[in-house]
Amino acid sequence: MTPSSMPIEIINRTVRARNPLVHCLTNSVVQEISANVLLAVGASPAMVSHPEESGQFAAVADALLINMGNPDPYYVESMRSAVKVATAHGTPWVLDPVAVGGLTVRTELSVELLTSKPTVIRGNPSEILNLHAAFTQQERSGGRGVDSTDSGEAALDAAIALARETGRVVALSGATDIIVSTHRITRVSGGSAFMPLVIGTGCSLGAVVAAYLAAWDDAHEAAAAAHAIFATAAEYAHPLAKGPGTFREAWLDGLHLAEGCTASCETEVL
Amino acid sequence: MTPSSMPIEIINRTVRARNPLVHCLTNSVVQEISANVLLAVGASPAMVSHPEESGQFAAVADALLINMGNPDPYYVESMRSAVKVATAHGTPWVLDPVAVGGLTVRTELSVELLTSKPTVIRGNPSEILNLHAAFTQQERSGGRGVDSTDSGEAALDAAIALARETGRVVALSGATDIIVSTHRITRVSGGSAFMPLVIGTGCSLGAVVAAYLAAWDDAHEAAAAAHAIFATAAEYAHPLAKGPGTFREAWLDGLHLAEGCTASCETEVL
Amino acid sequence: MTPSSMPIEIINRTVRARNPLVHCLTNSVVQEISANVLLAVGASPAMVSHPEESGQFAAVADALLINMGNPDPYYVESMRSAVKVATAHGTPWVLDPVAVGGLTVRTELSVELLTSKPTVIRGNPSEILNLHAAFTQQERSGGRGVDSTDSGEAALDAAIALARETGRVVALSGATDIIVSTHRITRVSGGSAFMPLVIGTGCSLGAVVAAYLAAWDDAHEAAAAAHAIFATAAEYAHPLAKGPGTFREAWLDGLHLAEGCTASCETEVL
Repeated sequence: MTPSSMPIEIINRTVRARNPLVHCLTNSVVQEISANVLLAVGASPAMVSHPEESGQFAAVADALLINMGNPDPYYVESMRSAVKVATAHGTPWVLDPVAVGGLTVRTELSVELLTSKPTVIRGNPSEILNLHAAFTQQERSGGRGVDSTDSGEAALDAAIALARETGRVVALSGATDIIVSTHRITRVSGGSAFMPLVIGTGCSLGAVVAAYLAAWDDAHEAAAAAHAIFATAAEYAHPLAKGPGTFREAWLDGLHLAEGCTASCETEVL
Repeated sequence: MTPSSMPIEIINRTVRARNPLVHCLTNSVVQEISANVLLAVGASPAMVSHPEESGQFAAVADALLINMGNPDPYYVESMRSAVKVATAHGTPWVLDPVAVGGLTVRTELSVELLTSKPTVIRGNPSEILNLHAAFTQQERSGGRGVDSTDSGEAALDAAIALARETGRVVALSGATDIIVSTHRITRVSGGSAFMPLVIGTGCSLGAVVAAYLAAWDDAHEAAAAAHAIFATAAEYAHPLAKGPGTFREAWLDGLHLAEGCTASCETEVL
Repeated sequence: MTPSSMPIEIINRTVRARNPLVHCLTNSVVQEISANVLLAVGASPAMVSHPEESGQFAAVADALLINMGNPDPYYVESMRSAVKVATAHGTPWVLDPVAVGGLTVRTELSVELLTSKPTVIRGNPSEILNLHAAFTQQERSGGRGVDSTDSGEAALDAAIALARETGRVVALSGATDIIVSTHRITRVSGGSAFMPLVIGTGCSLGAVVAAYLAAWDDAHEAAAAAHAIFATAAEYAHPLAKGPGTFREAWLDGLHLAEGCTASCETEVL
């Protein structure tokens, strides 16, 4: 498959046409930017997190995001409930195992939810390495909080193993994002050095992957296209920005304005 | 009453002069933008939500917002406590029944709090239709999460009925906002197509309605003026924006800079 | 000590070089801007607040912020746990007693945590006056929510007393910020009139003080330099802004771009 053969422009347009309703159980730090990012790409956000309501809402949502960034104590129950309903309805869902490893609540819950087979698992290299180690009950030293201390290529083996063991798509973010499924690898590169200076650019990517899964059946292509629109918007914003503040706003504009893909997007078959 | 007879510029100036302290029990997604919006129009925000503190704070606040957007489990108690104190002190308060209908916790709580007579009820067409149906114990199918699937004019009958049954002001948001009280209807139109692409423009409007109620005795005029400053700021921002990111910042500027009203604001007596 | 003798440019550069990981237990309203501000000055944010995880994370963080802005019920336990671990590890930490006084949960918890000797106590004049009164078991009427109703110079005596009684650094924010320790006072003035119109400029300052403490041993100088970069960024942003919306983004740019100090920064020895 060559870059031109991935129909990114059509996927972007399909998301806007379907306007998927994305249920986000995500951390409080990034709820606002995640919602704005979803609106900018043509989806609708909702963050229904009360344990008695989260299953009710999962039943009507088009996709679900489970982000472990900062779970409130009651989120554990809300997440279990939403995943159970999403699985029963065949609703696509994304697991973003933020900072798994040394922190016990999120690590145990991520491994538990992994058995419910998320459509896509998205994380930085340390998170993918730590999640894979926890899933296979191996020991390894954790990352440094929410930041990755491992490089993308170092985590690639873990991503491939995780994709094969679970049969799911694994998206590894970094300077070059790598989307891995059982028989394909796509590398998306481009973007801007300002991206890591804006909080929530990683977490909101999980929300957008969920939106794209709701609108496009091929989960590998959907995940790759979500990463591609992020990089494309970043390339729009970079020359307009003087720092992370003006970058953030221009990048939201860029997500709204993006049609095709200006970033590099290369797929190889395994 | 003609457009020119509603003293919007004077109301705006009065809010800035009085600098009302607005207690917001609102969802975590929109807390930051609600606070920034209140500061921009000349009010002061505070989001004191601990169940033991929310009544203490309601006793000193000038107005209260109850927004059902995403109630934490403990918010149920905090909201009951704040509403009780506000009612006892004669403090104006706003009920924003976000996504009532299919979600049970917020629907039951909204109907319960409605009996404490909010000064203004603010919502989109689906929310007003669903709240009225729940209040009068009628069955109806819910909206689609936080988005409205009903048009403003379709909900107008429900808004009029709700205003008459409760004796309160009902504000229905949409492309044209409609403020309804027992004997008056005001339509505010204008704004920008970017508004629905920025999260919290609806929820923060509830906070601004509360601020305006604290500064201006006529609740119908206060609610209409709050809607008018939102539309005026949107008209300021629209030509400066390339997308929802730059629109959001310019709109916050516009709220701060607004003096009179550039939007259309028409009142008829029922 | 003269202004030129405080090595602000070197402190700023040291923070960027060390990239301290700052654990923020802060209110939901300002979590996003606090994270963006930390990234802009070269630190890394994390808001791990689950009671079972907050002590685990405090053990690996380089600094800790405890902000009382809007404690969830479970934050009380999380804060106790994080402070205990930080103290045991000798990790610097900041106490920001937001709106202490009339609100009982945060006031009691602030006084309790004060006995664990925060490296820096940061607040507005009303907060410092109220915290000192509560600490010394004096009666006084509280401030008006999160806003200060007392001037900086009026609170200076309380700040000096609190600094001497606890042996810690006290940072008093206002039009002129005053950093007080047992034998030094530094006044930082400059900034922009837009600062109080952007939510979280005070709360995120507490996070930046924590970051600076992690990178620079002299706590008084670290606190003063954190205040100085805020004022410097505000002076960068002010002429670029038309209102609080555009100011906010330009100010985040300014934090990222700042090297030295353009604000006035005067130290006297007591």
